[in-house]
Amino acid sequence: MLSDSSEQLDFTPEIDMDCYPSRNGQKAQLVDRLDPVTYPPKAQLPPIGQAAIKQYATQGFIVLEDVFTAEEVGNFQAELLRLEEDESIRSSGEIITEPGSDEIRSIFRVHESSPVFKQVAVDQRLASVASYLLGDDVYIHQSRVNSKPGLSGKEFYWHSDFETWHVEDGMPRMRALSISISLTENFHHNGPLMFVPGSHLQYAVCEGSTPKNHFLSSLKAQEYGIPSNDCLQTLIEKGDIVSIVSKPGSVTVFDCNLIHGSNSNITPHARSNAFFVYNSVNNKVVSPFSGLLPRPEHICSRNKINPIISTAKVST
Amino acid sequence: MLSDSSEQLDFTPEIDMDCYPSRNGQKAQLVDRLDPVTYPPKAQLPPIGQAAIKQYATQGFIVLEDVFTAEEVGNFQAELLRLEEDESIRSSGEIITEPGSDEIRSIFRVHESSPVFKQVAVDQRLASVASYLLGDDVYIHQSRVNSKPGLSGKEFYWHSDFETWHVEDGMPRMRALSISISLTENFHHNGPLMFVPGSHLQYAVCEGSTPKNHFLSSLKAQEYGIPSNDCLQTLIEKGDIVSIVSKPGSVTVFDCNLIHGSNSNITPHARSNAFFVYNSVNNKVVSPFSGLLPRPEHICSRNKINPIISTAKVST
Repeated sequence: MLSDSSEQLDFTPEIDMDCYPSRNGQKAQLVDRLDPVTYPPKAQLPPIGQAAIKQYATQGFIVLEDVFTAEEVGNFQAELLRLEEDESIRSSGEIITEPGSDEIRSIFRVHESSPVFKQVAVDQRLASVASYLLGDDVYIHQSRVNSKPGLSGKEFYWHSDFETWHVEDGMPRMRALSISISLTENFHHNGPLMFVPGSHLQYAVCEGSTPKNHFLSSLKAQEYGIPSNDCLQTLIEKGDIVSIVSKPGSVTVFDCNLIHGSNSNITPHARSNAFFVYNSVNNKVVSPFSGLLPRPEHICSRNKINPIISTAKVST
Repeated sequence: MLSDSSEQLDFTPEIDMDCYPSRNGQKAQLVDRLDPVTYPPKAQLPPIGQAAIKQYATQGFIVLEDVFTAEEVGNFQAELLRLEEDESIRSSGEIITEPGSDEIRSIFRVHESSPVFKQVAVDQRLASVASYLLGDDVYIHQSRVNSKPGLSGKEFYWHSDFETWHVEDGMPRMRALSISISLTENFHHNGPLMFVPGSHLQYAVCEGSTPKNHFLSSLKAQEYGIPSNDCLQTLIEKGDIVSIVSKPGSVTVFDCNLIHGSNSNITPHARSNAFFVYNSVNNKVVSPFSGLLPRPEHICSRNKINPIISTAKVST
């Protein structure tokens, strides 16, 4: 069973082989996931309970409440405000604005550009969970704050992060996960993250190709690398849809291949979440499987594999 | 108190006076509603309970569960499908498509073009509630099916229907209401109707003017006749936001001036609701207060005031 990886001790990814072809002329289809969801842990003590680990394996996500205190979240919010107003970050190309407005949709590479989020990235409350589930030392593949502004925040269409990271960044196998921290309350009505439980166990091969410099438009509104309607219907009929309604300071851990998306936000309540993507150090990116040039370093850590978080360190 | 109208027996609207100016150069602001919400009933027996009537008066809406049976809803859905595929309706100009696609967003004037929805418009389960709350004989000011398609349905931004009906159609006073029938399940995640409870007790004067033939674009995505951010914030801080999550066959009654909107729908679950707007026969439209030409008959009944629903009839 894919989700129970305890017997797969000898997993060694073939990193240069395209094990998950997509956008290569194939018809849209669902194929089986080739990789475990959870890996044999190196750390001695599980940082979360067995029920949570099982839910992560079968559903593809877990929500951990009250991980950060109100004071910590206040600091994160203040830091986000500072980043949004920082001219050097505004002009760095590391900010994505909403389609049709100048409002900030995403700020990338916050684990390097922000001293506050740099600390968060290596915080044991996150890193220990990541390294435990992935059974390896981990590093930050990508970090960002998605700030869905009130009144005008637009949707993020359904996608598997891994499909993009594989095709556009060259992430070889599924041995990565995202941890999202709720910086504001995520209500039902302000465009919360929606998951398709169980969808991580299949891989939705996408049609179409990858335009050059796709990231310049895809991060505003994704048009390539999205599952077909039929694939999506099949996954949702099987797994349904779960909206992640959460309080500030709660944490959502989800598999790199879990299908997710979110609706627009016409309410005045901004919906901001900080994302840290942890990847196994044995799953570093190679050349993009699209054959195109790699995306910029602020979207995908390629040269700066930093910080490497040791399981030995986080398990103490 | 405005919402308790039982003492206001002598209400006679001055129909040619612009009692609710908007988009006329004034600054955006909230002003008091001049009209009652509920009117002294002519019908003898209340068709809904006192608690529901009180909620309607104070909150501006009520939800009535299980009004139509599964069989009836099945007929409505089949009729909607027939209308969507009817070439004569497709070419009539009475259909609005989604911004950026050919998918149907709204079909207007269904109380005349469809034998099925014609019956629904005069169904006593709806009409008796409308005439009771408005204390008068009523007619259909507008009818439509809003079909928010799955995967690609876009948002309806916050607005008061009355503001548009007043400025663009010449509806003199607030003595109208909408009844919405859920034709599909309205989940939290497929762009359900969202209300700002209590917002109907104030009138949000809007800035800007009204472009000629505004309806050609406004029914796809509204840009004029929307409350300012400040007005919206104030109303939402006071009343919060309620999402109308409802089963097929349930009915939502809401005041003509209640601020409402809905988010987009990236889920595969279409969200279709049929709307019937009942107006008091003593509140028929006059010339639009914008000074522009009236909108077409299929958006606003001006010449064909039909059917007139008598309270005497519906109260039996």
